[in-house]
Order: sequence, then C-alpha cells, then structure tokens
Amino acid sequence: MSRFFSRKYDALTPYVPGEQPGERQYVKLNTNENPFPPSPKALLYARDHTRSPELYSDPEAVELRRALAFLCGVRPEELVLTNGSDEVLNMAFMAFCDANHPALFPDITYGFYPVFAQLNGVPYREFPLREDFTVDVSDYLSAKGTVFIANPNAPTGIPLPPAAIEEILAADPERVVVVDEAYVDFGGTSCIPLIKKYDNLLVTQTFSKSRSMAGARLGFGVGNEALIRDLNTLRYSTNPYNVNSLTLALGLGTVLEEAYTQKNCAEIIRVREKTAKALRELGFTATDSAANFLFARSEKIGGEDLYLTLKARGILIRHFAKPRIRDWNRITVGTEAQMETLLSAVRDILEERK
Amino acid sequence: MSRFFSRKYDALTPYVPGEQPGERQYVKLNTNENPFPPSPKALLYARDHTRSPELYSDPEAVELRRALAFLCGVRPEELVLTNGSDEVLNMAFMAFCDANHPALFPDITYGFYPVFAQLNGVPYREFPLREDFTVDVSDYLSAKGTVFIANPNAPTGIPLPPAAIEEILAADPERVVVVDEAYVDFGGTSCIPLIKKYDNLLVTQTFSKSRSMAGARLGFGVGNEALIRDLNTLRYSTNPYNVNSLTLALGLGTVLEEAYTQKNCAEIIRVREKTAKALRELGFTATDSAANFLFARSEKIGGEDLYLTLKARGILIRHFAKPRIRDWNRITVGTEAQMETLLSAVRDILEERK
Repeated sequence: MSRFFSRKYDALTPYVPGEQPGERQYVKLNTNENPFPPSPKALLYARDHTRSPELYSDPEAVELRRALAFLCGVRPEELVLTNGSDEVLNMAFMAFCDANHPALFPDITYGFYPVFAQLNGVPYREFPLREDFTVDVSDYLSAKGTVFIANPNAPTGIPLPPAAIEEILAADPERVVVVDEAYVDFGGTSCIPLIKKYDNLLVTQTFSKSRSMAGARLGFGVGNEALIRDLNTLRYSTNPYNVNSLTLALGLGTVLEEAYTQKNCAEIIRVREKTAKALRELGFTATDSAANFLFARSEKIGGEDLYLTLKARGILIRHFAKPRIRDWNRITVGTEAQMETLLSAVRDILEERK
Repeated sequence: MSRFFSRKYDALTPYVPGEQPGERQYVKLNTNENPFPPSPKALLYARDHTRSPELYSDPEAVELRRALAFLCGVRPEELVLTNGSDEVLNMAFMAFCDANHPALFPDITYGFYPVFAQLNGVPYREFPLREDFTVDVSDYLSAKGTVFIANPNAPTGIPLPPAAIEEILAADPERVVVVDEAYVDFGGTSCIPLIKKYDNLLVTQTFSKSRSMAGARLGFGVGNEALIRDLNTLRYSTNPYNVNSLTLALGLGTVLEEAYTQKNCAEIIRVREKTAKALRELGFTATDSAANFLFARSEKIGGEDLYLTLKARGILIRHFAKPRIRDWNRITVGTEAQMETLLSAVRDILEERK
C-alpha cells in the first residue's frame, strides 16, 4: 500500500480469483469455464461484424440489447450490458446499498459480495446457510437491506425455486433483491419473468459460463426500467464504453446461436450427473448441483489435501480456506474425457491413502 | 431515477459522450477517433493469438504488460492495464482522493473529471485556465489535494512541458499528481520517465487515440510500484478480468507494430497543421494543438451554430455548451480527404452567412 492510498480502504481485502496457470498445461477445473468454445458460426459472425476497432463501441449497444432482450422476453430498456457480470453486481452495490441500506447475503456464497460491500463502504450482514447448505428464506423476509442471492448458489450449486425468491421480493417491496443467475442455464429456473411483477427485482446473468465467453467479458442485468436507468446513470459516470466492440459482435453471434448454447448446457448437465454419481460411489458427499460445477467432500481426504494432490498431478480444482467449507472442493464440470481423467486420479489418490 | 437509487448520487450528472450516429453515414470528427484502422499485421496477430474466449483472460496480462513496459521504458510492476483509460482515471479518483484529499483540476479540461469526483463523493476544486487557455502552474503549487492534469489538455489541445509538471510534482511530494496523456502521441512530451524520480506521479495513457483501438478499450497507468499496487487492489476488488482476451491480443499486436502507430501519428500531425492553417485563413482562431483535434472559433459563426449546420451537412464536430468555450468547437483530425470535406463545407457556410 502506498502512503497515498485512501484510508477508506483500510479494511478492504481484494477478491482472489482461481489460479490462471501460466506454464504447465493443467486439466483446468477450477474457474467454472465452459469446456467448449463459442460456436464456429458465432466466431465467424464476430469476425465479419466487429465494428472497426478504431471507432468507439456503441455505448447503447443497440443491436445486442435488442437481440438479447428478445431472447429474455423483456424490452431493451429493461436490460443493461456490462464488462462481465461482476461489473453489474458492483454497480448494484453502488446503486442500491449505502449506510442506511446494508447488503444482505448468505455466509457461503459468491466471494465477491463482501468485497463489493467493503469497496463501497457499505455495511453487510451474512446469514448462515442451513447445515445442508440451503438458504433459509425466512432470514430475508424481515431483515432490512438489499438482498443478494446467487441462484443457483456458489460454490454449493444448490438452486432456490423462483417461488422462494418471490417470497423475499413480496416481503418488502421497498428494498431491492438482486438475483445473481451466473449459473442458471445449467438447471436452475430464471427469475427474469418476475421483473414484470416486481419493480424491486434485478436479475444478473453472464456470458462467461453457459455461453463460453469468460475471456470476452460480457454480463447483463435485467429489471424494471427505472432500476436499469439507475445502473445506466452509474455506467455513464464510470465508463460509457464499458463493453468493447469485439465482445459486442461475439455476444450477438452467440445469442443468434442459442441452440448451440443449449446443446452444450445439456451435455454439461449430463456429464455433471455422471460425475456426481461416480464421486458418490467413491464415498464422496456431493450437493445436488444445478450449476456447471460440483461441490463435494470425502471423509477420506481433506479439501486442501485433495486440491494439492490433484494439482501435483496436473489437475486444478478449487479449494476455499473458509469456515464450514474447508473440507470441500468445487470441481468445474469439463468434458467427459476431462472428468474421466479427474475420477481416475481421485481413485488412485484414495487408493494410495488407504 | 428509481426510488431505490442511493441518495449519495443526488448531485451526480453523468458524462455525455460524443454522439454515436446510428443510421446516417457522417464524416465523424466528434470523438477524437483515429481515422486509420489498426495495422493489418496487428489484426492478423490478434486473430491468431486470441486466447480461447471460453477461458478467462489473464488477470495479470503478463505478456502485454511485459511488451508495453518495454515500450514505455518501465518495469511491468510499474504498469496497470484497464478497460480504457477512463477506468484507470476513475480508479485514481477512488484511490487517491477522499474527503481530506480533494481533486484539483482546470475549469476547462476533460469533462469526466468532475463526474468521477461526484461519483466517488469526493470534493473537487476547478482552477480557471488563463484567458489563452493555458494552465497556470502556480495554482497547483500550494493547493492541497490530488492534481489531475490532461496533457495535452482537452478540448484545447494545449500541452504543458514536463518541466511544468515537475514543478507541481516537486512542490508537494505528499500528494499524487495524475497526468492524463490520452493525446500525448500527437506532439506532447510524456512524463513517464519522471516516474523514476517522483513516487507521487501517475501517468495514464490510452490505446484509443494514437493506437486506433477506441472500440477495443485499452488504457493503462504508469507509476511507482506502490501506486500501481494500490490500483491493483481496487482492480482485484472490482473486476480482476477487466481487460478481455480479444483486446489483450490486439493490444499486443499493436505494440509490436509501434512503427505503424508512429507513421499514423505523423500523418495526423501533418493534416492537423494543414487544417489549422486553412481554418486560420478562413478567419478562425485556433489554439496551438498538440493533440489529434483542433479547438477553434470563428467571429462569423457561433459554436453551436457551426456544429448544427455541419451536422445537417453530414459532418459531426463537437460543441460544448459550457461557460467560456460555448463559442468554440473541437474538431477531430481525420484523413486529409475528410478535412478537405470539412473545410469545403465551412467555406460554403461562411459564404452563405455573409
């Protein structure tokens, strides 16, 4: 820290993203990337339709917003695009939280929420998940503040039905509920249709997971037009050209290839279920994940131990050195072949530990 | 504004970017874009070296930082990459300004500075430029706060010599001076070498202007390692993957084609001088711009009038409805042919107004 850094960040602990290995080629199952590239047609479309890079990207992103709004069943005015969904989440903390509106979220959830709260000097309260890692909806019904719910939750993968979210929305129409649907396409149910009924709902999604665009950075928020206008006020006060034109073109190509996205999601779900079954047969406990990752633990090997042992064998999975989940690992669902490599390594390791 | 929007933004007035015309094809001289595309070799390089879009971009941007640091004569640890230079500027307001460290900048300068200050709830003070639009360095010597100087300044185009910046730096080593060099490659002198001598200097630059990458969004900050670490603390607390992998690849291709960049800059400077001469012959007053735009006024036609009349003829230039400069226009330097179109239209308009 330099002597110039504002004291307001004294308590700020930055987010730690999953390792991005440089040299060695790993089987990379640690950052929930999609194992499949964007469709060849989408890539070709992007190549042919990228606006000249010397010109600014369209700050209104008219074309992509129109297509994506159609896909989501909303109007373009109900949608804002961002540089990954982390950006729209941070904007939601900026816009809808302050000293009088603390952020409320589970104790085990996306690790960026407390960082966004600290960054923006916003008080926050974490509600413990139940013993089985499910959200206790009743916690959020009378608590005052802006609610952030990842659905399905990370790193547990456990989804909440929209009816449960609706309970939270209806309990207090005077506070915003943000539903972070980064993983919804792998078996969750989106709350987007509820924006027509609740003007206090903001749904966020990303192209990073189901749409194979983690490296291209595209996220979005969907909500009542007034909420979206607030987020645009912040966007135009920060970085009006936040989404670059190469990404806008690839995003549009990807939206036009929705069938390809759905086919990949179906394959990832199939491989997830097969892998979960195999892990359970090896004695693991795994949550019922509706995401593109599994959350599992073994009585025979600790979470950090399994992470390090697999890493030494060239396989990266995620371990969180945090209370309640330090015995667990989050394992991204890759291709069937990658998961067979993982399972075979896990079998060897458990055998060695006998 | 929704009823949920935090009251802390009550006084926030977002930035207004130059028009991005949709339907009609304009001669676009309003947002200081480069009239030349990135070099064909850089574009090919980007196509062949873009990391798979389904994988996250490298949050450390090791390759591009290494190459760019070499080009700038600094170490990679002295450099941070951002999603356009607006992002690094906003981070500087976040990191180095607060209630006790107001932002200080000229009354006529990049219009985003007051917006960043308002967004971050930071007090700011504007020092009037002299009558001839030059910066009065003495204003900044004893004033307490974080200094932001666009050099060359916008929209005037007038540069300050590094010796003047050095005076400000040396006057108070306990405050940060940010030098925004968005336009430096068109005739200014960079302060980057001064980072070795002053640990309170942050220099920001962009690939949007001289490097023809406005639409791809790439900016960077250069400074003492401790300052850069502060900015990375914010980057990792906001959006660690802020620069996407398509842009990283194109950025690297562009750095490798530095000679192409310099050739384009020389051509733009040549056309700028020729255009300035022609405008002065038509009776305009124009500042001595060292940027890729001209700042000019005519006694014969008002700034808004000229803007609207040219727009009706299919030529976009910029007008700012602000005190002291409402009679002026900012005109981006395009190709020689574009500037001839502009000059010919201006001649016609002045003829009509006789």
